[in-house]
Amino acid sequence: MLVAVLVPFLCCLSLATAGKLLVIPMEGSHWLSMKEVLAELSKRGHEIVVIAPDSKMLIDSSGIYELKMYPVPFKKEEMEELMRSLSANCFSEEPFLMRFFNTWDNFRKTSAMFQTSCSSLLYNKEIMKYIKESKFDAIFTDPLTPCGQIIALHFSIPTVFFLRGIPCAIDIHAAQSPDPPSYIPRMFSLNTDHMTFPQRVKNFLISISETFTCSMVFSPFESLASDFLQKPITITQLLSHGSIWLKRLDFVFDYPMPVMPNMIFIGGINCGQKKPLSQEFEAIVNASGEHGIVVFSLGSMVSEIPMKKATEIADALASVPQTVLWRYTGEVPPNLPKNVKLVKWLPQNDLLAHPKTRAFITHGGSHGVYEGICNAVPMVLMPLFGDQMDNAKRVESRGAGLTLNILEMTSKDISTALKAVINDKKYKENIKRLSDLHLDRPIHPLDLAVHWVEFVMRHKGAPHLRPAAHDLNWIQYHSLDVIAFLLAVVLLSLFISFKCCLFCCRRCCCKKGRTRKPTKSKSH
Amino acid sequence: MLVAVLVPFLCCLSLATAGKLLVIPMEGSHWLSMKEVLAELSKRGHEIVVIAPDSKMLIDSSGIYELKMYPVPFKKEEMEELMRSLSANCFSEEPFLMRFFNTWDNFRKTSAMFQTSCSSLLYNKEIMKYIKESKFDAIFTDPLTPCGQIIALHFSIPTVFFLRGIPCAIDIHAAQSPDPPSYIPRMFSLNTDHMTFPQRVKNFLISISETFTCSMVFSPFESLASDFLQKPITITQLLSHGSIWLKRLDFVFDYPMPVMPNMIFIGGINCGQKKPLSQEFEAIVNASGEHGIVVFSLGSMVSEIPMKKATEIADALASVPQTVLWRYTGEVPPNLPKNVKLVKWLPQNDLLAHPKTRAFITHGGSHGVYEGICNAVPMVLMPLFGDQMDNAKRVESRGAGLTLNILEMTSKDISTALKAVINDKKYKENIKRLSDLHLDRPIHPLDLAVHWVEFVMRHKGAPHLRPAAHDLNWIQYHSLDVIAFLLAVVLLSLFISFKCCLFCCRRCCCKKGRTRKPTKSKSH
Repeated sequence: MLVAVLVPFLCCLSLATAGKLLVIPMEGSHWLSMKEVLAELSKRGHEIVVIAPDSKMLIDSSGIYELKMYPVPFKKEEMEELMRSLSANCFSEEPFLMRFFNTWDNFRKTSAMFQTSCSSLLYNKEIMKYIKESKFDAIFTDPLTPCGQIIALHFSIPTVFFLRGIPCAIDIHAAQSPDPPSYIPRMFSLNTDHMTFPQRVKNFLISISETFTCSMVFSPFESLASDFLQKPITITQLLSHGSIWLKRLDFVFDYPMPVMPNMIFIGGINCGQKKPLSQEFEAIVNASGEHGIVVFSLGSMVSEIPMKKATEIADALASVPQTVLWRYTGEVPPNLPKNVKLVKWLPQNDLLAHPKTRAFITHGGSHGVYEGICNAVPMVLMPLFGDQMDNAKRVESRGAGLTLNILEMTSKDISTALKAVINDKKYKENIKRLSDLHLDRPIHPLDLAVHWVEFVMRHKGAPHLRPAAHDLNWIQYHSLDVIAFLLAVVLLSLFISFKCCLFCCRRCCCKKGRTRKPTKSKSH
Repeated sequence: MLVAVLVPFLCCLSLATAGKLLVIPMEGSHWLSMKEVLAELSKRGHEIVVIAPDSKMLIDSSGIYELKMYPVPFKKEEMEELMRSLSANCFSEEPFLMRFFNTWDNFRKTSAMFQTSCSSLLYNKEIMKYIKESKFDAIFTDPLTPCGQIIALHFSIPTVFFLRGIPCAIDIHAAQSPDPPSYIPRMFSLNTDHMTFPQRVKNFLISISETFTCSMVFSPFESLASDFLQKPITITQLLSHGSIWLKRLDFVFDYPMPVMPNMIFIGGINCGQKKPLSQEFEAIVNASGEHGIVVFSLGSMVSEIPMKKATEIADALASVPQTVLWRYTGEVPPNLPKNVKLVKWLPQNDLLAHPKTRAFITHGGSHGVYEGICNAVPMVLMPLFGDQMDNAKRVESRGAGLTLNILEMTSKDISTALKAVINDKKYKENIKRLSDLHLDRPIHPLDLAVHWVEFVMRHKGAPHLRPAAHDLNWIQYHSLDVIAFLLAVVLLSLFISFKCCLFCCRRCCCKKGRTRKPTKSKSH
């Protein structure tokens, strides 16, 4: 049966009607896995147009799509400087308050840059005219910056969102998915799904505070959207119009929670087909002998780390017999041991897939963690910012790795953690179990993503998956008007019953009174 | 990519390790689609054992599984008589109260029969010994009668549930899925997902009443489970141990609502591959000419209908130029027109798939409705009992059919409705749209079902999909303890602040008092 069904499905690959897809991506690592979906869509004959600012970092020209650029009033160097500053702040040993304000300042600048970029796009008459005339079937966008959805709403084009999550659970609220704070850990809470009472209090307080913090963070986007669409709109209302939410998560890694039928889970989409290693890397891996290798990368955003920290790390790496492949572009630490090979870039997924790989030292970005899970490599996590702390907590709570505090860790801590994940069998067993569960799926996440993008293109959206909750206000959704009405009915009934009883009693008393009254009058 | 990924998947069909599956099915139409999954699992080399009572209706012996029977203290004829009585009651013209009590009595008897059957199984030492010794990898069961789950819990075997739904939303509560009554219509409410205020009041009241009605209905099963497992257990607690919920629903037909990651939607699983019609049916269809045919069946449970109703129906069918294929085993109405062919059985799905089929007259059982949707045939619905009224409402609310009240419908009503769904293009367009959406899926529901049964067999359950909500009580789940604690903290803070202010004020007053006091003492 399976073969009988799959054969026509495979056949329909070439039969599918080609459509026109507009892509409004997000800069950074988010773009990398989105590009893989575009490559697949391009193979299936769709016409793809990517719109990006002319100052960009990872978004590049390609034969698989047409890249249209619009001018923005900032330079690529400014973005890179911001990223550098963000990563430098992670290693800063300044007092907490100072680091907090630096992070906040960086965040404000990054956010302002995205808003400027969005504004430049929305008010670019040429691009807007092009979009209007191009009659796109769908918009494929990362809703972390809601620019794509503003355009979609303006031109009535259905959207497919591609994301891991949005701070303050805006994605969850916009999709009308319930998320009780009693067992769904909030972003940045470092809680797991099993919380103690104090942890539940913390989680509850974070969930309340999110309403205020996020309205502050997203208010410039809300103003932009309201001005452009000429009607007041919140960020949640804006994103509630998304047809399909392609979410880069899997419940092997994330905790199970209520979801909506228009959420499609494609966690691990970036664990593509393994390619053979280049001669250079193959030689290093083969030379590692029985001890094998350790892959070490703090992600593409962190290019260098302070020399003191680098020296400590180098010191720790000397304590293991494995060959360590360290992706590092900063200044070489003077104590770099022989077993450590510094490289400017490494084929992370292909190296993790190698049977000689014993451990993965990572910053805990979701892409890296999924590659670790796919390839069943236990991890040492050094989270830096964003959702990385939560990701590290998830891996650790599954017994598949150990987390280190990048600021406080000593050479000994790193060495102990690394030796533990390599030598203690339980880490390998746990990550192997997660990996087996993750890879045992009826369809590859990439094909699932492609299917749903095409679905929205074919059917001009997915209105049958839109819950009616979108048409209710907060009071109606929680049935508070119904409860108030029923309470009123009950109280009114009680009141009437009470009044009736009172009336009956009075009648009785009255009768008695009347029988006594003449006696009284007689006495007068 | 898709091909590259699917090829190893296809290969793994033959490589998959064969397992041992115990099936504890539900009698009636539920069994028919379950059997299709078993056929597929059997092809994949699994050893399947079906356990059923020796008095059974549709469950039969087969080469694809081993059928083990246990004796029950009732006969097949008694079951059939109950079914007959249930269907006869649908056409009864007795006063409402009388019909209600008859239905209740039938329901009570059916329920008692299922309980007796379950009890006979649980206390059958031979079968229990066999299950214990057989080391099954999983139990595949219909949780409408929770007998399979009682056995699963007793022997610690993971379960896969196969169902459409359980009255009182027990399935939803057992899976910890939220279901706000503001937009999720309750079973038997006849509401859609868009409700007026009175409808929301009705829905809310039904959702409250469900707690009481269902505890009454399921209490014998709860006693049985508690006695057998030797610990008190509710039906919701019992079913909360299910690893995977294979739900026979699709959001083309059902309304979108929150779901849990361990719920897999396989609506339309019964719309299998179309087989060519037999010569007899092919001849009838071909002879229908340009007008085509109408397929008419009130399901396998309704064998005959009162002559008065049958005469009215026959009268109405004479008014359309289509040939009507009517599955009917009762007494032939005297006015049967020439265009109506009575048959004892018909290949429903294959006939609906024929391009000459113009309409489908159905009782609105979910299997039939899905076949109507799969094949894009507009429907006239004559719901009789159970969820059929709700199903009919769903089809009607989608503009894909018209509903008739079986008791009140006249010959003219039937004729008008039938002509409307045949001649008014909007019905065909709407059902075609639903059909297109329903069939546009990345994997066939049957393969999805097979994958998840095998998943549970391979991994001994799916604990990573079990939400932590199961480990919270009602107060904790709704964070009521956290809210109470925070309120207490706020009130205590206010109280302390107030007391401090009061203390300060008193100190001030006291000082003033002291400055006055000496004056007073002097005056003495």
